[in-house]
Amino acid sequence: MTTITGQEREAVYKTIYSRRDVRSQFISKPIEDDVLMRLLDAAHHAPSVGFSQPWDFIVIKSQKVKSEIKQAFDIANQEAVEQFEGDRKALYQRLKLQGIFEAPVNLCITCDRTRNGPVVLGRTHQSDMDIYSTVCAVQNLWLAARAENIGVGWVSIIHLEALKRILNIPDHVTPVAYLCLGYVSHFDEKPELEKMGWLSRDDLTPLIHFETYNNKSVD
Amino acid sequence: MTTITGQEREAVYKTIYSRRDVRSQFISKPIEDDVLMRLLDAAHHAPSVGFSQPWDFIVIKSQKVKSEIKQAFDIANQEAVEQFEGDRKALYQRLKLQGIFEAPVNLCITCDRTRNGPVVLGRTHQSDMDIYSTVCAVQNLWLAARAENIGVGWVSIIHLEALKRILNIPDHVTPVAYLCLGYVSHFDEKPELEKMGWLSRDDLTPLIHFETYNNKSVD
Repeated sequence: MTTITGQEREAVYKTIYSRRDVRSQFISKPIEDDVLMRLLDAAHHAPSVGFSQPWDFIVIKSQKVKSEIKQAFDIANQEAVEQFEGDRKALYQRLKLQGIFEAPVNLCITCDRTRNGPVVLGRTHQSDMDIYSTVCAVQNLWLAARAENIGVGWVSIIHLEALKRILNIPDHVTPVAYLCLGYVSHFDEKPELEKMGWLSRDDLTPLIHFETYNNKSVD
Repeated sequence: MTTITGQEREAVYKTIYSRRDVRSQFISKPIEDDVLMRLLDAAHHAPSVGFSQPWDFIVIKSQKVKSEIKQAFDIANQEAVEQFEGDRKALYQRLKLQGIFEAPVNLCITCDRTRNGPVVLGRTHQSDMDIYSTVCAVQNLWLAARAENIGVGWVSIIHLEALKRILNIPDHVTPVAYLCLGYVSHFDEKPELEKMGWLSRDDLTPLIHFETYNNKSVD
């Protein structure tokens, strides 16, 4: 049996705690092909419902595709701005929320809703388990990237229909995450939205319940 | 800036590759409170859309709640069996798909759809981003657990309505993952479903596309 040592455990926690959503610190240094393959293989070793491995990876480096994605982001972001008011709106407008051009690699991780179907073990009662598996792949990749000192930012301010059109994604496939990847000048000590005063880190204790929801005392 | 060393990077990959969905290898050794808190804090440091931290954690140890969950699993699993035919059905029936009683700790991770709402930065165009954030928390916890040599199994064969009823989860909160946690006799070298011949590991290469979906050649 593979045992994880105490030192290795600390490395995992260090990676988890120092992982950031990166938008502003990308540098132009390219990601080597073998490093990118390590990241994709880490994603590919995520848990998946019924071992269905429903993910695909679209690797984007061209200026052409990045430009189309950036335009789609700009349209969505202008719509998003209008949903905030007053000070929040002003702060929102000061935030940098994507690094599409600066990141050498963009990556769309998708979920094939028909992979190994129609009946997938473990998906019979929770049909979104394939999507959840794909998100697990995203988080595996995010942590592997951090372990390679590569930053990752998740761009979610974009219409899914635009993503599907630009990336030629067929109907039975759902884009789950659009990520920007690259080496960075530095990783922030704290999440950018915390540093900028958008929201603060919640205390963990009130989020823990015992036996049932809203029961706050251990039996 | 926090730099991850080569040795630390290898520890992260070792953890990712040796993580398993555990159903059969739980031992009765309890999980210490401080270890459980480390796991929950790792989950709490997952990325979340707009830093909204939409998750809650229901820690279950009582025989009473476990029994109700197990009953709900049995009902759903009987329905699931009927969706398979012939050899697949026979193989399905031989699989052990949960360790609810054997695992000392069960954990339901939920998503509060109203947390820091109604308008959440980054969720304006993809309303399920809060659910995705919660899944990232699940995967952080899963890897932290593996780094502690603790096994985790995800029980998805259960009606969400039953989960909500048993755990007294309010309407605005969605149960995302029901997990079984415990120390193990060993971690399997391969996923159990692979070992049992349910499905095999896909090759990674055909899952990689360039610039657009289904484009298999680098420019």
